Amino acid sequence: MNLPQYSDIEKAHVLIKSLIHRTPVFTSSGINSLVGGELYFKGENFQKVGAFKFRGACNAVFSLPEEEVKKGVITHSSGNHGAALALAARLKGVIAHVIMPNNAPEIKKTAVAGYGAEITFCEPTLEARESTLAAVVEQTGATEIHPYNNFYVISGQGTAAKELIEDYGEFDLLMAPVGGGGLLSGTAIAVKQLSPDCKVVAAEPEGADDACRSFKSKTLIPSVNPQTIADGLLTSLGERNFAIIMDNVDDIVTVSEEKIIEAMRLIWERMKIVVEPSSAVSLAAILENKVDIQGKKVGIILSGGNLDLGRLPF
Amino acid sequence: MNLPQYSDIEKAHVLIKSLIHRTPVFTSSGINSLVGGELYFKGENFQKVGAFKFRGACNAVFSLPEEEVKKGVITHSSGNHGAALALAARLKGVIAHVIMPNNAPEIKKTAVAGYGAEITFCEPTLEARESTLAAVVEQTGATEIHPYNNFYVISGQGTAAKELIEDYGEFDLLMAPVGGGGLLSGTAIAVKQLSPDCKVVAAEPEGADDACRSFKSKTLIPSVNPQTIADGLLTSLGERNFAIIMDNVDDIVTVSEEKIIEAMRLIWERMKIVVEPSSAVSLAAILENKVDIQGKKVGIILSGGNLDLGRLPF
Repeated sequence: MNLPQYSDIEKAHVLIKSLIHRTPVFTSSGINSLVGGELYFKGENFQKVGAFKFRGACNAVFSLPEEEVKKGVITHSSGNHGAALALAARLKGVIAHVIMPNNAPEIKKTAVAGYGAEITFCEPTLEARESTLAAVVEQTGATEIHPYNNFYVISGQGTAAKELIEDYGEFDLLMAPVGGGGLLSGTAIAVKQLSPDCKVVAAEPEGADDACRSFKSKTLIPSVNPQTIADGLLTSLGERNFAIIMDNVDDIVTVSEEKIIEAMRLIWERMKIVVEPSSAVSLAAILENKVDIQGKKVGIILSGGNLDLGRLPF
Repeated sequence: MNLPQYSDIEKAHVLIKSLIHRTPVFTSSGINSLVGGELYFKGENFQKVGAFKFRGACNAVFSLPEEEVKKGVITHSSGNHGAALALAARLKGVIAHVIMPNNAPEIKKTAVAGYGAEITFCEPTLEARESTLAAVVEQTGATEIHPYNNFYVISGQGTAAKELIEDYGEFDLLMAPVGGGGLLSGTAIAVKQLSPDCKVVAAEPEGADDACRSFKSKTLIPSVNPQTIADGLLTSLGERNFAIIMDNVDDIVTVSEEKIIEAMRLIWERMKIVVEPSSAVSLAAILENKVDIQGKKVGIILSGGNLDLGRLPF
């Protein structure tokens, strides 16, 4: 299994730097007083398409050989990766095919369509997504860009942590949410190179805890019927992601839905930024005392800011 | 009547620069495509206490003679100015007395108390606020810092537009909301000096249109029973503010409640930032075609980001 190294994150950053936003970092003295640590939030909600996913999608599309990429790219995605791939493909001048579950949030459907992708809807099961995808690949010759279990996607996602450490120096602890593990695996590779003494801890919703169970049991265990408001974290860990996580991540902790909502509201109120529930799981873990941050310098990657404002949990 | 000049805004900026945040500026290619202009949003929602009000309050407190300021400062305020004065006084090491209407939003009461102010509640009428304030002044000798009809407050508020033009060059049009007129009058003085060809247009809710009526009739007309979701804009124009506005503002337009809510949601969704309804009136005026911005470079001052997330209009 071909796994990215730190040099692949460096290459990714050179390739995509002019296409992505170098996102801002936020601090809140109010939140710092509340939790007793020094928190730096990397705002990937301000990334293009509103999520870190654009980094990986961009790296994957622009790393493909010309002969391949001109036939288009394809993915199945609950939304952010679909939008990210659509925009990356548009910037490259090729077609993106996006297989989406028919129950995806309206705001994500609109975003994907708005970036010019060809959408094919299917039933909201992994099986339906995969068979629909295979049919479109058969028809078009498009290259699948997996949302997280992909060498170039992982390398691209690692550029967020790279920027954070370049801009703010080494950390004691760096946190990211974990769903499929694309962000977490890229982050961990970057951190272990750039801030070797920094612990990497991931947070995951209790109702979608496959990564935590896989990590503790050292065996890849897929999700069965995951339930969480953090809709970006419903996916099961990928194989490449799992291998990287086992080698580079220090811990994975789980958090309740109540704390995710509380953390999300705290971020909105104190920092005046809109983040999606998936972004709030790291702070939720801190609020729930699942991770010790007393007196520590902590980096937190806010994954994105796409959610339906008509269906807020408060 | 003593009115500030541009040099007073310069002095204010020197005095408060190290105390305030130089707030970020946001752009959205999505919103630009939608409206046909090039919009730059000055994010005073990221100012300390979450609103531009901290600029003016800080300048007023730090401009007072030591003999006066040590007896404390006092204001009546629906919230943001109260919080701003409380924090400015704390930084100066003096007491702030804040008279607040008993129906002020919970989040604003908590903020003012959190900054260490002495709060006295009163009935939500201008008369009750003024008599309560007079009683506390009698007792303490504190100096009143009016939320907007104050030389130093106006000078301080003008520093937001000064920063915007320093950072992004001259504009074709600059917009700000108008309630009491502190932000608008300071903004207009700064713009006419730093970007002389730039028009200054204010936006105001239809249900609180005293500034528009005053401007059109060239006579100061107070609000009677104003109603709007933009709770920062319920106050009537001050005398100093009116005089400056008549000389320096090009137009004042009114907007419907529906468009304020639509504009606020658009800012949250597209720019991923939390702004209060008062911040959204300028974009609402653009969406409602009350101001022509086709092909123009437009600066918009987002006044703040304090609102009760438990009571959103969507």
